[in-house]
Amino acid sequence: MDAPVKNTKVYEQVIEKIKEMIVSGKLKKGDKLPPERELVDQLQASRASIREALKALQIIGLIESRQGGGNYIRESFEGSLFEPLSIMFSLQNSRPEEILELRKIIEVETAALAAKNINDEELTEIKGIIDQINESYDEELNAKLDKELHYKIANASGNFLVVVILTAVSSLVDSFIKDARKLILTQIENREILIEHHENLYNALLEHNKGRAAEVMRKHLDFVNEYLTSK
Amino acid sequence: MDAPVKNTKVYEQVIEKIKEMIVSGKLKKGDKLPPERELVDQLQASRASIREALKALQIIGLIESRQGGGNYIRESFEGSLFEPLSIMFSLQNSRPEEILELRKIIEVETAALAAKNINDEELTEIKGIIDQINESYDEELNAKLDKELHYKIANASGNFLVVVILTAVSSLVDSFIKDARKLILTQIENREILIEHHENLYNALLEHNKGRAAEVMRKHLDFVNEYLTSK
Repeated sequence: MDAPVKNTKVYEQVIEKIKEMIVSGKLKKGDKLPPERELVDQLQASRASIREALKALQIIGLIESRQGGGNYIRESFEGSLFEPLSIMFSLQNSRPEEILELRKIIEVETAALAAKNINDEELTEIKGIIDQINESYDEELNAKLDKELHYKIANASGNFLVVVILTAVSSLVDSFIKDARKLILTQIENREILIEHHENLYNALLEHNKGRAAEVMRKHLDFVNEYLTSK
Repeated sequence: MDAPVKNTKVYEQVIEKIKEMIVSGKLKKGDKLPPERELVDQLQASRASIREALKALQIIGLIESRQGGGNYIRESFEGSLFEPLSIMFSLQNSRPEEILELRKIIEVETAALAAKNINDEELTEIKGIIDQINESYDEELNAKLDKELHYKIANASGNFLVVVILTAVSSLVDSFIKDARKLILTQIENREILIEHHENLYNALLEHNKGRAAEVMRKHLDFVNEYLTSK
């Protein structure tokens, strides 16, 4: 019979070894992991421990198993931290306001960073998304575009960790506050306000004006958050 | 023989069900999970799937297995997101500067939030830590106290998610930049500068001055980050 504590150590060692393969560059994004039986030999662990470690890495969102077999290091880690964050949030009996507060904390400074680092290609993409939102009255589509806009701005910050954490936090917003954009647009005059916010945001990014980008994002999120918390 | 994809779904379902028990309040922090054989009956899954799900939840840091057996929902989730974040960071070939940048983003606004929400008890605790640092020349101890100080300030923000994410980011700083405080203190005059920063920070919190707290924290982290990136 396995002692659970000893078992824990084995699967932790397996994860540690896979992590070493990553840090040393032997495993890169998109790479296929060696088959289970090879890992058993390489890492000198039982097949059960290997499978436990692999499942855990899947949950964390670092690897994915593909149809037809095989485990792959994921190409993209967006959303990887969402599941654990979401469970923790539930356990903590936290208030949805805390998520909005955290999003504001990160996104305001991210806008400033984006204003500093954004390139022409990213500016064009962002302008394209804003134009699409302005022309469309399909709120399903606009909600999707709105999310993409915030994501593109985070990406333009040039800081991968910011993108990962902001994406996790945004997923948390989505899961606890359904249809945020629709809620705001129950008042028709808000459409014009959102359009103006987006234009101001774009202009601040275009001018590489850090302070202004942060200020506009703060104003935007204060406006949005007020709607979402007073519902 | 199990098809891996089908198997994935089963353990995901198990996690989803455990999550439901958490959201519904059936499972709370510190609670003992039902024994594996009971989970097998309750969740109608194979013992192997249950064990995989439990291991994954351990990795995420949501449950812990204790000596003598049994799995418990953890009382504290600090550090829970560190392991996944650390592996992602390695995979992404990110620069240590990105961690420092992210920490600054979060911690500056967190200081402002703490200035707003801090209570007398927390102020006394923070004053106590600062006094200890000022009196001690044991840099091992001071590094520990310094970390505690930042942690207490995050806690005083009253936002649990901020604490969780900041703790994950700080662990990342520690793992990629060893002995940060020692590095700074290779120049003896920096001791006085750090003491002054801490005093200013405490005064801003005491006065519940959000803007000042953010400003002082920004100045402090700019100073620290410059040392850590120029090494």
